[in-house]
Amino acid sequence: MTTTPVIDGIHLHARLAALARVGAIDGGGCARLALTDADKDGRDLVVGWMRAQGLAVTVDAIGNVFAVRAGREDGPPVMTGSHIDTVRTGGRFDGNYGVLAGLEVCRAFDAAGLVTRHPLCVAFFTNEEGARFQPDMMGSLVHAGGLSLQEAYAATDTSGLRLGDELERIGYRGRAAPGTIRPRAFVELHIEQGPVLEEAGRTIGAVTGVQGISWHEFVVSGTAAHAGTTPMRLRHDAGYVAAAAATYVRQLTHDMGGAQVGTVGVSELRPNLINVIANHARFTVDLRNTDEALLRQAEQRTFAAIDSVAQAEGAAVERRRLARFEPVVFDAAMVAHVERVARAHGHDPMRLPSGAGHDAQMMARLCPTAMIFVPSVTGLSHNVAEYTAPADLEAGAAVLLDVLLELAQA
Amino acid sequence: MTTTPVIDGIHLHARLAALARVGAIDGGGCARLALTDADKDGRDLVVGWMRAQGLAVTVDAIGNVFAVRAGREDGPPVMTGSHIDTVRTGGRFDGNYGVLAGLEVCRAFDAAGLVTRHPLCVAFFTNEEGARFQPDMMGSLVHAGGLSLQEAYAATDTSGLRLGDELERIGYRGRAAPGTIRPRAFVELHIEQGPVLEEAGRTIGAVTGVQGISWHEFVVSGTAAHAGTTPMRLRHDAGYVAAAAATYVRQLTHDMGGAQVGTVGVSELRPNLINVIANHARFTVDLRNTDEALLRQAEQRTFAAIDSVAQAEGAAVERRRLARFEPVVFDAAMVAHVERVARAHGHDPMRLPSGAGHDAQMMARLCPTAMIFVPSVTGLSHNVAEYTAPADLEAGAAVLLDVLLELAQA
Repeated sequence: MTTTPVIDGIHLHARLAALARVGAIDGGGCARLALTDADKDGRDLVVGWMRAQGLAVTVDAIGNVFAVRAGREDGPPVMTGSHIDTVRTGGRFDGNYGVLAGLEVCRAFDAAGLVTRHPLCVAFFTNEEGARFQPDMMGSLVHAGGLSLQEAYAATDTSGLRLGDELERIGYRGRAAPGTIRPRAFVELHIEQGPVLEEAGRTIGAVTGVQGISWHEFVVSGTAAHAGTTPMRLRHDAGYVAAAAATYVRQLTHDMGGAQVGTVGVSELRPNLINVIANHARFTVDLRNTDEALLRQAEQRTFAAIDSVAQAEGAAVERRRLARFEPVVFDAAMVAHVERVARAHGHDPMRLPSGAGHDAQMMARLCPTAMIFVPSVTGLSHNVAEYTAPADLEAGAAVLLDVLLELAQA
Repeated sequence: MTTTPVIDGIHLHARLAALARVGAIDGGGCARLALTDADKDGRDLVVGWMRAQGLAVTVDAIGNVFAVRAGREDGPPVMTGSHIDTVRTGGRFDGNYGVLAGLEVCRAFDAAGLVTRHPLCVAFFTNEEGARFQPDMMGSLVHAGGLSLQEAYAATDTSGLRLGDELERIGYRGRAAPGTIRPRAFVELHIEQGPVLEEAGRTIGAVTGVQGISWHEFVVSGTAAHAGTTPMRLRHDAGYVAAAAATYVRQLTHDMGGAQVGTVGVSELRPNLINVIANHARFTVDLRNTDEALLRQAEQRTFAAIDSVAQAEGAAVERRRLARFEPVVFDAAMVAHVERVARAHGHDPMRLPSGAGHDAQMMARLCPTAMIFVPSVTGLSHNVAEYTAPADLEAGAAVLLDVLLELAQA
């Protein structure tokens, strides 16, 4: 006899709190950098819960963990999940929430005596944050075939430790070949990490895709000179070039509008003295758009503007690409499915793109994929003060349950 | 029997080199911060030369040193001089050149058997640079009555040492009351420390005055947020405010033209990460003009622009005045006198204001004052690579000689 499966909110909160105690840091946050002892402890805790729930756990060669709940039929599972590694001063919900909510869906199905047609799989992927080893979203990227095991193993942290060795050391270099479990569909539940849902007063976001990201570093070489004795027309001011670049980026986002965002987050001058014209400036430009053609346009316009201002100033500028990802557009039917379920739960869901990267964007290479967002208070994330209200966490998990249920029964 | 007095260039260069060996640092520069052991050693060397030349040396209570060559009449001397302290990585000519050239003028008069009508005085003033104790131009400021001895003695360096104690320690707290020697006229020979003479192909600058200086520090408080997930309209980007301020300052100097210069030499962001909108920015604005009304206008326009951009960004901004000096205009007859002598020496002198501060601007409070500039290669100063060609050093000293001779015989 089956009943209607429902999320056990109390249990979800208790597990989030228990996982947050692993690698806990002052202020309520977590430090579980990928493949550290703290990451191992977090993994052991979650794998223990998976096994205790009777799920079949597989660890692959990059350390991704898959917990499968059998369905009436064999074949590809419906997959959900996220990551449990954190940045150095991370919050307790980023990633962890999606994984533990997936386990709560399994518990709810168990409690309701429900066996789905297709298997259900709850996954957590290795090194999503990229805070210790680059690139980020590494486990899901390897799973999707976008990065070889050899390349991933060769990544080193700042103290020279190899990722492959660290994976072995913490006991999570599994035997399964990456990509073996190819799901029918993938759904990731995650906190928004931005202020949009909160500002709009919505509880559920139906994520339409992930913004493309373009990261570049610029180094400007001018000429140090006395701020009093050097006429304006004889200056080669590296600091001015940096300032003009930052104001251009802001103007560009206004001119392009839409989803285009742009940020100069790093800016440093040398010698950085009040009465000396800077001979050196280093700054970064972070450009994002949901549309690849527009993102390319933003890059080209920014590069041209910076070259032009540097040339006019008689300063040299060097550009280095730090990261570049094309936008990802999620499957339209999957996004509509999330919206439909959210409405059935009484929500007024909001379509929005993700401004941050997620494992779902790698899984979208393999299968129809969607993401569900819940609000982040004041948009704060990668911060110990990251917070989402308990009711919102429960609402997101409840939507996830019905989204997965429908996919698993289809 | 008198002959025509002439500067002994070889001797001038030898003394500049000998003084540069005191506190010598790599690259050919000097570190003789005010009232350090190195400053004492430099002072002892120069005072030794003064005494060896038969000059009457007086040290006043702030450590200014005056060496008087008697004239046919008593009464106020014609004074020349500058300073011999340096910044931490200073050059060998800044200040030292004017003092040692003054001593060469005395030697030339001696060699020519010439006794002038009025006494001639060669001075060096304490702590012109202000690199260890603030304010800068301290010795000449005290001499001119602009700062009390008590205030000057109370100045402390970064390790908490009091200027009064350090002056006593190195044996240069003299007995003479500051301001006792009130000259008939003051002439300071100095390297330009800027690129204007070199660019114009001129050897001698007739300095019209000293720019007024306005130094302010701004601290902007915005909100740290994710560069990907935060829509442009929800940002409070402290880094953008700093960048917009720096581009405004540049635009202002173009709009105002003339002698107006403006520099943002310090700019720092926090957290200074590529994908985080800065919640904190600190920057400085250095504005200078030869006209006080225009300098005030530049300040007001800059303050208003920064307040306006911060308000539009939803960021708070705090402003702190770090320094403010009104412009100084040198005596027109004195400037014309320098020009006339320079032309008589076959030069095509250039009128220009000084962008840097000098002891002469304090002495201008007491008597008709002028400055003579010689070129600085590529405008470099406060740098171990500071350089002026030997022929230019000799040309400047020769002009100084005749400028002083005419004043001392008048």
